[in-house]
Amino acid sequence: MFVSDCLGVNEKGHLTISGCDTVELAKEYGTALYVMSEDKIRDTCRRYKSSFDKYYDGHGAPIYASKAFSCKEICRIVTSEGLELEVVSGGELYTALAAGVDAKRIHFQGNNKSVQELEYAIESGVGDLVVDNISELRRIEKIAERKGVVVSISMRIKPGIDAHTHEFIRTGQIDSKFGFALETGEAFEAVREAVLSEQVDLIGLHCHIGSQIFDKSPFVLAAQVMLKFYHQIYKELGKKLHHLNLGGGFGIKYKNADAAVPYENYMSDVSAAVHASCAEYGLQIPRIYIEPGRSIVGEAGITLYTVGDIKTIPGVRTYVAVDGGMFENPRYALYQSDYTCLIANRASEPAKFRATIAGKCCESGDLIQVGTKIQTPQVGDTLAVLSTGAYNYSMASNYNRNPRPACVMVSEGKSRVVIKGETYVDLIRNDI
Amino acid sequence: MFVSDCLGVNEKGHLTISGCDTVELAKEYGTALYVMSEDKIRDTCRRYKSSFDKYYDGHGAPIYASKAFSCKEICRIVTSEGLELEVVSGGELYTALAAGVDAKRIHFQGNNKSVQELEYAIESGVGDLVVDNISELRRIEKIAERKGVVVSISMRIKPGIDAHTHEFIRTGQIDSKFGFALETGEAFEAVREAVLSEQVDLIGLHCHIGSQIFDKSPFVLAAQVMLKFYHQIYKELGKKLHHLNLGGGFGIKYKNADAAVPYENYMSDVSAAVHASCAEYGLQIPRIYIEPGRSIVGEAGITLYTVGDIKTIPGVRTYVAVDGGMFENPRYALYQSDYTCLIANRASEPAKFRATIAGKCCESGDLIQVGTKIQTPQVGDTLAVLSTGAYNYSMASNYNRNPRPACVMVSEGKSRVVIKGETYVDLIRNDI
Repeated sequence: MFVSDCLGVNEKGHLTISGCDTVELAKEYGTALYVMSEDKIRDTCRRYKSSFDKYYDGHGAPIYASKAFSCKEICRIVTSEGLELEVVSGGELYTALAAGVDAKRIHFQGNNKSVQELEYAIESGVGDLVVDNISELRRIEKIAERKGVVVSISMRIKPGIDAHTHEFIRTGQIDSKFGFALETGEAFEAVREAVLSEQVDLIGLHCHIGSQIFDKSPFVLAAQVMLKFYHQIYKELGKKLHHLNLGGGFGIKYKNADAAVPYENYMSDVSAAVHASCAEYGLQIPRIYIEPGRSIVGEAGITLYTVGDIKTIPGVRTYVAVDGGMFENPRYALYQSDYTCLIANRASEPAKFRATIAGKCCESGDLIQVGTKIQTPQVGDTLAVLSTGAYNYSMASNYNRNPRPACVMVSEGKSRVVIKGETYVDLIRNDI
Repeated sequence: MFVSDCLGVNEKGHLTISGCDTVELAKEYGTALYVMSEDKIRDTCRRYKSSFDKYYDGHGAPIYASKAFSCKEICRIVTSEGLELEVVSGGELYTALAAGVDAKRIHFQGNNKSVQELEYAIESGVGDLVVDNISELRRIEKIAERKGVVVSISMRIKPGIDAHTHEFIRTGQIDSKFGFALETGEAFEAVREAVLSEQVDLIGLHCHIGSQIFDKSPFVLAAQVMLKFYHQIYKELGKKLHHLNLGGGFGIKYKNADAAVPYENYMSDVSAAVHASCAEYGLQIPRIYIEPGRSIVGEAGITLYTVGDIKTIPGVRTYVAVDGGMFENPRYALYQSDYTCLIANRASEPAKFRATIAGKCCESGDLIQVGTKIQTPQVGDTLAVLSTGAYNYSMASNYNRNPRPACVMVSEGKSRVVIKGETYVDLIRNDI
């Protein structure tokens, strides 16, 4: 019935998440409120982890891309399930380390890491510094020389694959700010430089072909392209790498109609391609990484609101205003993203009322969803937006000086705050 | 030469703002850095203020729409220049009160104020609570009754004017989440209810027809429509209101080609229409308000970055990566907004290099500007983006857990921090 199997409806007709009544959660913690199912997150982590056992004899691991949702508790949860961790900034690294994550299990990505961030990563002993471009490589070499260390790096490669997704979140093709291009020879030249360097140890390759992808074939193609390059490096430079990171981008369900591929199918097809390529090239299978972010936390999260004013404009539309908006979920304003919305306190009623869900920001574009079908709304209802676990809290702002909502983690009918909601005092903390 | 008269180039060829060398500012405070010219802000405030003396005999005032840029110091600056203040949330109200602004000079807007926000506004003695819809009116009446007070309100009216601007920031037409529609009779019925109420004192009307408008005629039309309604209220309900707030939306220069109307021309045309309508209806001229936000702070602000990696993709484009991005300026990602960019340390050289300015966020759509002409960039250069004083800091997030930059105010060659930059500790402050 719902986009995520952690959701249900109880005997009161209320939406539940991992056994918690969402109407009770809204009462207890107030709204707007981010709610995440720990059970769903752990279950997804285990499915990813066990698929590595099945398809790669455990020689590899999923890496949680923490940019989808970064806070101390999510770092603890995913690493306790055996996942490694991707960070893309000093702030995400700081969060992971504050949560007690072993730096060796951290992969640091980013197209323009500052010198301070590189130094911080190297000083912290980050296990895998993913180099984006040639000047970054040289910057790392200088820092390593100064500190008298050898830094383990991998390299981000643009495999030249277009995953046919939204223009904004397409990252594998040649016109991208990320990584070294294969076609132009840029990637091979950079690898040669790294292999010859005494300050870095090149241990792997990385690629990422896009986001919210529903098709398996671009992933299969990317694996083939990357293994061909992996083999070329061995053949021409005599360098045997340690790992191949095939990136993330696995699509999730925002609407029931979204045709998300079960991870197991993806793993099955891609691992077959990996095995076939390695056999063809006579290669030992490298340690394989994938980098899911959205697909670990996205469907596990919902946002709860209280319906404020309902404004029907005859012959035009009905605006249902909620106590959130683009400050806590900017994805509709940014990408016109689809979401499933429903009245949580009448979740079992048919969704026949066409509504435009508006936020409380002083901006016309502050909408959460346009012309979506929900149960007939009333002022004071609890409105739920589903699949908000990824890129909602992480992209939230204080636009209009609205405090960011709290985030509550739920598991087996119990709930706890994992990120406190901001107060007005927080908003002016840095004002002089 | 530049979009704003607070900018110049000194003998070193460096961009200056209000007499401060931007390259020195970048060195002293680090980048990314918001820089705002206090001189320019005060000058603009004075021009607005004096135009009220000239065109309305001082019977009216500009109201600074603080959503454009809210912090304690800007509240102090604009109110010290005699402006009143608009807030759109409890957080903006809290900021204004913390800055010592007199609550009587505060106008509280918003399409979905919470009960807590309404109570906070009423308890604080906010001078003008702008009612958006009928259920909010009734909510205010209940609170007022409970507290035994009479609340001064005005009403937000949709005058039904389309200001031909970007769809996202068009707010005056009938299909809007804001205000009472005139055409349908909704506005008049609401006014009647307010006039008959013993809990509220209806003191004014408000309208806002859009944002970043370059044409004077929709403003003139809005004034005529609103005065006709103002007169109707007097004629049919015997209620003489105190003020008419004609809103904001005055366009500013992001690029030199932007044909921003000088405020004085706007004031001249609109005041002529106001005087003519009042003469026609035999009305005393009400106290007139306008609500500039962007036009007070927009051109007064710039953002300084350090150029990190420069990536040329042969035959495609050159990405110039800076140490900011959509977390501190989401306007390109949201609206594909135009900006003027330049290399601040070679500001007098010709801008002949076509570059795409990319941020450091792990997202392909994290761009500040696409295909813009700048001076030939080098790693380590200071890159300036102009006209970032409005809706940049106010919309900033911690996406990718990047800390929000500091904001420095400059005046007559001197600089001071007005908002401290966030630290990593700030980022995890609310994490459990």
